[in-house]
Amino acid sequence: MDTTDVKAFIFDVFGTVVDWRGSIIRQCEEFGRVKGINADWPAFADAWRGQYRPYMNKVRTGELPWTNLDALHRLGLEDVLNEFEISGLSDDEKAEMNFFWHFLRPWSDTVAGLYRLKNRYIIAPMSNGNIRLMTDMAKYSGLPWDCILGAEVARHYKPDPESYLTAVELLGLRPEQVVMTAAHQPDLMSAQKTGVKTAFVPRPMEHGPDRTPDPTPDPSFNVVASSFVDLAAKVGA
Amino acid sequence: MDTTDVKAFIFDVFGTVVDWRGSIIRQCEEFGRVKGINADWPAFADAWRGQYRPYMNKVRTGELPWTNLDALHRLGLEDVLNEFEISGLSDDEKAEMNFFWHFLRPWSDTVAGLYRLKNRYIIAPMSNGNIRLMTDMAKYSGLPWDCILGAEVARHYKPDPESYLTAVELLGLRPEQVVMTAAHQPDLMSAQKTGVKTAFVPRPMEHGPDRTPDPTPDPSFNVVASSFVDLAAKVGA
Repeated sequence: MDTTDVKAFIFDVFGTVVDWRGSIIRQCEEFGRVKGINADWPAFADAWRGQYRPYMNKVRTGELPWTNLDALHRLGLEDVLNEFEISGLSDDEKAEMNFFWHFLRPWSDTVAGLYRLKNRYIIAPMSNGNIRLMTDMAKYSGLPWDCILGAEVARHYKPDPESYLTAVELLGLRPEQVVMTAAHQPDLMSAQKTGVKTAFVPRPMEHGPDRTPDPTPDPSFNVVASSFVDLAAKVGA
Repeated sequence: MDTTDVKAFIFDVFGTVVDWRGSIIRQCEEFGRVKGINADWPAFADAWRGQYRPYMNKVRTGELPWTNLDALHRLGLEDVLNEFEISGLSDDEKAEMNFFWHFLRPWSDTVAGLYRLKNRYIIAPMSNGNIRLMTDMAKYSGLPWDCILGAEVARHYKPDPESYLTAVELLGLRPEQVVMTAAHQPDLMSAQKTGVKTAFVPRPMEHGPDRTPDPTPDPSFNVVASSFVDLAAKVGA
């Protein structure tokens, strides 16, 4: 990729920057131990994450007014608690569980790669997660973001084009000066249509050891890297 | 101040976090040397800053649609160049001057104080400066913000109540959990009306050695500190 004119890298977060699944399972297991609740927590984590897209689509189609990801996670939590027949939790306990999404651990190469990229480029999350969630995660995991962009500032969830284009506009850049980075090919294909460049960093362990990783990268991506450190090396940072 | 429930400090930036006047004068002087332009640059800096409030008020009253601070600085620059009879600059040269506002130096206690505050609280700018401007300034001056809030995310300039309240909302907090920090008493008086707490850190050198500093602090402020390091000490950070 010719990086002469590139000024910023923006990032999908859940799965690309952090290991949401491992982090949610770990926190749920600890919560279960303290509260005396037994459950298949890996299946619980997958089911909770599974609620995210249908609820988000209700916002994207206008069936729900603008609702941030914390609130969507909370709606999904009720469904999943019912599904797993976990009852008797107080509102405070449910709020505590909902905060698990604020404390997700980065992949082992994430922080080192972000520091290198930050030396040369503006780096910012371009996530469907809300600002407070991203802020807590950055403090907890030491993610050195320059600013926090994403669905909440655009009031449009990915993959709506407005989500990516608001980030470009707030950075005062042209689309081709911005690189969207993700482990998910559909996110990159949508971003690409708005004119931004794309970096694919597959995360084969996102869904655990038993799931098939993403297939071959689409040849249209501007750069493919095996980690954030590899990405930094490939873009001169 | 009882800080038990306080979660975040938000900051006025121009004058409170950075020495805008000294930084603009220094960059203008250097620009003048390179371009062979002689001018009273301290007076030029004051006049340029002086354009900010009337242009911003046109946005606040609806005479202008939403316009970010970079664009307001650019409008003001034209007026000030005319006033000082500086002509013949290209659009690129004017754009270069406008970027001076992105590269402002912090007061000597700013960075150390922010790092201490960041250990215990969320810290974010609550400035009328736009996101890209704040982002460049943070990279240039090493300001360790957790996220970037301010007028542009609210689409309301201070002292509109919506500006402060949007910051509170995006942080997922109640007003009394947030402390607005500024060197300017009117900014704090306006913030206070929305229910946030207030910290006053006077910056007697903001307008240069010849101007009278702010008078006695209003007794309603929750904390008064002589520097950001003093502020950190006073709020247990």
